[in-house]
Amino acid sequence: MESKEVKLLGFWVSPFSRRVEWALKVKGVGYEYIEEDIFNKSNLLLELNPVHKKVPVLVHDGKVIAESFILLEYVDETWKHHPLLPQDPHQRALARFWAKFCEEKVFETAWNALCSKGEEKQKALEQCKEAMEKMEEEVFKGKQILGSDGRSNLGYLDIAVGWISHWLPVFEEVGSMQILDPLQFPATAAWIDRFLNHPLIKDNLPPREKMLVYFHQRSQELSSTAQGWIKV
Amino acid sequence: MESKEVKLLGFWVSPFSRRVEWALKVKGVGYEYIEEDIFNKSNLLLELNPVHKKVPVLVHDGKVIAESFILLEYVDETWKHHPLLPQDPHQRALARFWAKFCEEKVFETAWNALCSKGEEKQKALEQCKEAMEKMEEEVFKGKQILGSDGRSNLGYLDIAVGWISHWLPVFEEVGSMQILDPLQFPATAAWIDRFLNHPLIKDNLPPREKMLVYFHQRSQELSSTAQGWIKV
Repeated sequence: MESKEVKLLGFWVSPFSRRVEWALKVKGVGYEYIEEDIFNKSNLLLELNPVHKKVPVLVHDGKVIAESFILLEYVDETWKHHPLLPQDPHQRALARFWAKFCEEKVFETAWNALCSKGEEKQKALEQCKEAMEKMEEEVFKGKQILGSDGRSNLGYLDIAVGWISHWLPVFEEVGSMQILDPLQFPATAAWIDRFLNHPLIKDNLPPREKMLVYFHQRSQELSSTAQGWIKV
Repeated sequence: MESKEVKLLGFWVSPFSRRVEWALKVKGVGYEYIEEDIFNKSNLLLELNPVHKKVPVLVHDGKVIAESFILLEYVDETWKHHPLLPQDPHQRALARFWAKFCEEKVFETAWNALCSKGEEKQKALEQCKEAMEKMEEEVFKGKQILGSDGRSNLGYLDIAVGWISHWLPVFEEVGSMQILDPLQFPATAAWIDRFLNHPLIKDNLPPREKMLVYFHQRSQELSSTAQGWIKV
């Protein structure tokens, strides 16, 4: 479907560009994927996203859109079949609320824990687990997620928090830390299993071994400052 | 219109709760405003928004929604007349992009400049002005703003960046700093004038003198840490 007019600039290990790919796949929209070297940014990226100079960037019929959550809305509004967001305004608000929460309170703290040591790492870990408690109760035991009420289609929330299934375990291994205790978070664990086995996801994940090497290097480089990749 | 079923918990000087009020006024939706003491939070707030414990919180027919940008989307999707966001998906994406940009790159840096000193203040100020240069070119000279192409209705972007008109000048005065040089940002200055004189805005702003006292106190309290009110 309209494959030649959709281009996505991404980075192989970025969960932000990967979530846009997942959304395009749910919609069945063909696209040309352009791998970006975020450590040596191309003129194309600098030209398309001069404000943030970051992936993902989508180019659709010459129109340029950046920022992954804004892209999910764009994809959902442009290709209306297989809706990602629910129809009801309150349910839509809840999906957006928890997507934002997960980004700000789980991703950021997990990343900070990965890139720090000692007391700072412990503090970030605690904050991350505390946020995961809320995710377990409000998202993974909720109704807007793969497997709830027999739901077999990926929705906005699955895509928004999908990084938890594959990136977070890598962060745990590289950072020698545990966040996703399946005894503490059984609904999360069950969702991860379903998500990773979904036909649109299982072949659309970066290779784990390569991720381990990448995040080991990145976390070493950033270990004193707790910043970097997310802001690259 | 359905006035008894809409309640908004806000804080008089919060630009985040004020923007939700502006959106409700554009839609002509009556609401009960409940002033929250953010330094001594009510049980009602803690019960309605246990995750962030922050205003604004909207209660509509018993449904609870938090986070101001998510609330703007909710208001726009629930009351569809006088749309805030444009219809075209790409224009919608641009509106969301610049709203987020303004929040992250203008508000945060202006706040940091207000609450810091010396080198840190100078750095924040430079970042803020740099972001304002982009706002001038991409937003205030753009098409989605009050006055562009004879536009007389407030839209999503006006509401999202509306704090620039009234809060930013207070930050400048309290922090003894200049950001909004009208010679450097003439389109911004012209928009501020139109926005402040809009019938829905001019009587829906916190009193400037009281704001000066409030932000003077807050910036003193926070002057070494550059954080606080935004996260309260």
